[in-house]
Amino acid sequence: MERAKLDSSSETVEVEWSAGGVDRFPYIWLRDNCQCSECFQADLNKRLVLTSELDLDVAPAHAAARDRGNSLHVTWPDGHQSRYDWQWLRDRCFSTQARADRERRWRRKKQLWGAELFTNLPTADFPALLTDDRALYDFLFLLDTIGLVLVQNVPRQVGQFQELANRVAFPKMTFLGAEQMLKVKPIHGNFLLSTAPLGLHTDLAYYNYLPGVQMMHCIKQTESDGGASELVDAFNAAYQLKEENPDAFKLLTTVKVNFHRIGKAEPKHHMRERHHIISVSDQGEVQKVVCGKHSRDSVLDVPVDQVKPFYRAMRAFDTILSNPRNCIRYKMKEGDMLAFDNLRILHDRTAFSMSGGERHLQVGYVDWDETYSRMRVLQAELGIQE
Amino acid sequence: MERAKLDSSSETVEVEWSAGGVDRFPYIWLRDNCQCSECFQADLNKRLVLTSELDLDVAPAHAAARDRGNSLHVTWPDGHQSRYDWQWLRDRCFSTQARADRERRWRRKKQLWGAELFTNLPTADFPALLTDDRALYDFLFLLDTIGLVLVQNVPRQVGQFQELANRVAFPKMTFLGAEQMLKVKPIHGNFLLSTAPLGLHTDLAYYNYLPGVQMMHCIKQTESDGGASELVDAFNAAYQLKEENPDAFKLLTTVKVNFHRIGKAEPKHHMRERHHIISVSDQGEVQKVVCGKHSRDSVLDVPVDQVKPFYRAMRAFDTILSNPRNCIRYKMKEGDMLAFDNLRILHDRTAFSMSGGERHLQVGYVDWDETYSRMRVLQAELGIQE
Repeated sequence: MERAKLDSSSETVEVEWSAGGVDRFPYIWLRDNCQCSECFQADLNKRLVLTSELDLDVAPAHAAARDRGNSLHVTWPDGHQSRYDWQWLRDRCFSTQARADRERRWRRKKQLWGAELFTNLPTADFPALLTDDRALYDFLFLLDTIGLVLVQNVPRQVGQFQELANRVAFPKMTFLGAEQMLKVKPIHGNFLLSTAPLGLHTDLAYYNYLPGVQMMHCIKQTESDGGASELVDAFNAAYQLKEENPDAFKLLTTVKVNFHRIGKAEPKHHMRERHHIISVSDQGEVQKVVCGKHSRDSVLDVPVDQVKPFYRAMRAFDTILSNPRNCIRYKMKEGDMLAFDNLRILHDRTAFSMSGGERHLQVGYVDWDETYSRMRVLQAELGIQE
Repeated sequence: MERAKLDSSSETVEVEWSAGGVDRFPYIWLRDNCQCSECFQADLNKRLVLTSELDLDVAPAHAAARDRGNSLHVTWPDGHQSRYDWQWLRDRCFSTQARADRERRWRRKKQLWGAELFTNLPTADFPALLTDDRALYDFLFLLDTIGLVLVQNVPRQVGQFQELANRVAFPKMTFLGAEQMLKVKPIHGNFLLSTAPLGLHTDLAYYNYLPGVQMMHCIKQTESDGGASELVDAFNAAYQLKEENPDAFKLLTTVKVNFHRIGKAEPKHHMRERHHIISVSDQGEVQKVVCGKHSRDSVLDVPVDQVKPFYRAMRAFDTILSNPRNCIRYKMKEGDMLAFDNLRILHDRTAFSMSGGERHLQVGYVDWDETYSRMRVLQAELGIQE
């Protein structure tokens, strides 16, 4: 920085940057964020100053650029000294532009896709994910931006989901356990599992905090026709709905739909939650899509004359979701694992016949909270710039 | 029910109840929610009808009250028959009153409290919680409505949190593990733990999905002065802020604050999330309070001239939170466990001196998703009416 001076009228320190331009940093914010070891615990990035101890009207006695412009030094009336690195300050600018830049970087932009992704499906190599941090980062980056990765060369044994989940963070535990076995045997039919088409759905829609990342490992595939996975980028479909049918989009972003699951066998459970089918941010960006015939409750909390419009809206969305231009159909091979964003990618399984022998998947989840943390740590360790 | 008839103009079946009054059920909703075994899997409460297969314009050929008014029978044009139990229908009425009643029951009303709760602190007996389902339900009910329960007679050994967590559901796993040991030893000071006051805070504020229920088990308490727990019903404080200082309330419900935690020691982590300090529902009800000096980031995404008003608002809230009329101070005894709603109750620990010997707490979390599920199951099993 070139120069720093106090501006008592706006209660800010005005900093003039060497590259040009001026930014202002409020007195109270500077005091609250003093980086000295008395005020801040650097190893854990923790503030030590109690909010109740702050003097809201504090004003520095002195402020100046020091260390050949590398830092801002502030002296407070009680003699306390603060030093702020120029880059640290720069990263925290209050200007409209700086805030917009941070907003943009806060969540990575999603790359929307349709059926054309099938010819260029993001893939990852399972053994590499277990040993190579860069491979793991690239995999997570694809999961975040594309929402779907086909992991190949997975051993055809139970336990591989947990291997990968532990490399990312740890499995999200649910009432179904750390992972679920989805096994359809030709003779002893598991009554919980149907061979009928499932319909496009979100897993565990009745959670308030839905599992973020789903991993589906194919150990045994049916040899009969059918049993293919269908996958759709529901964010892309939601934007198409907004364009083609704004009224339907509006309904699906404003009506809260009840989702539930009640199980009387162990583990007994009665989960329920309400979600918009399409959730949008304050800026109108699609953030989450939740649907599925299995978990949608018969309780529908809308006025009676909005029921049919709601069904029309669901149908309009469904029609776009299942349009061949949006939908990938892929029959998992034994040794495949499909990893996808459960808040964005809807999945389905086409009907199949029991005659094709056993079909066995292992399915589990990892939360986005933990996944993003892992990505940030890897990004720093690998020195990745975005 | 007394009578049922088709009303083709509104596309509803009009049901006249035996107790008086009329409700209307849309054709399309009735078809979607046929309860026969072909359309609905009763054991898991799962719909089997695909949304894409529904005829949006379907109209029954016939509808009538049957079984001496105990059920509605509908015959569809393709010959499919549906039967709906009268109570099932009644529970799903679309009337304004019925929807308002369901809304009210959806989340239990919180009983707000101040310092006066101290003389009447909700308690539970640990051994009873492990063996008696009714005691467990009552404990969870208090956690949901009051937000704070003192569990007594807990063995003074590690592992008791997990015993109780497993009775509720299972521990919420975080990057800190299934539970945290908070131990301050007088000689080998753990540098992660300070004896300075912590300030009122929410645990794990940098999670998108914060842990819902916190349990804090005291195995060893410091014999020196200090080390007391302070607990505040932040919902109560938030409503006071709304009353006393609506501008401050508005700022805290609209400015998104960054929370983060970066740890370079194992387990390495870089968690971050944005929350309003006070989150309100569409109906203006306070739903969540998130704060804490430790985890609040130095990045503050507001225009520069809103910085001081934001600090003023935080201070105004802080002043109410720490007002003695709102705040309970309780020094945990060895064998106590404090269980509280981490999204509502802020907690603090007063300063203490190393001279008082070791202080050892075990802390863990359980998600509300799982806790509510457990409550619903217990409620049904125990036949509890509310």
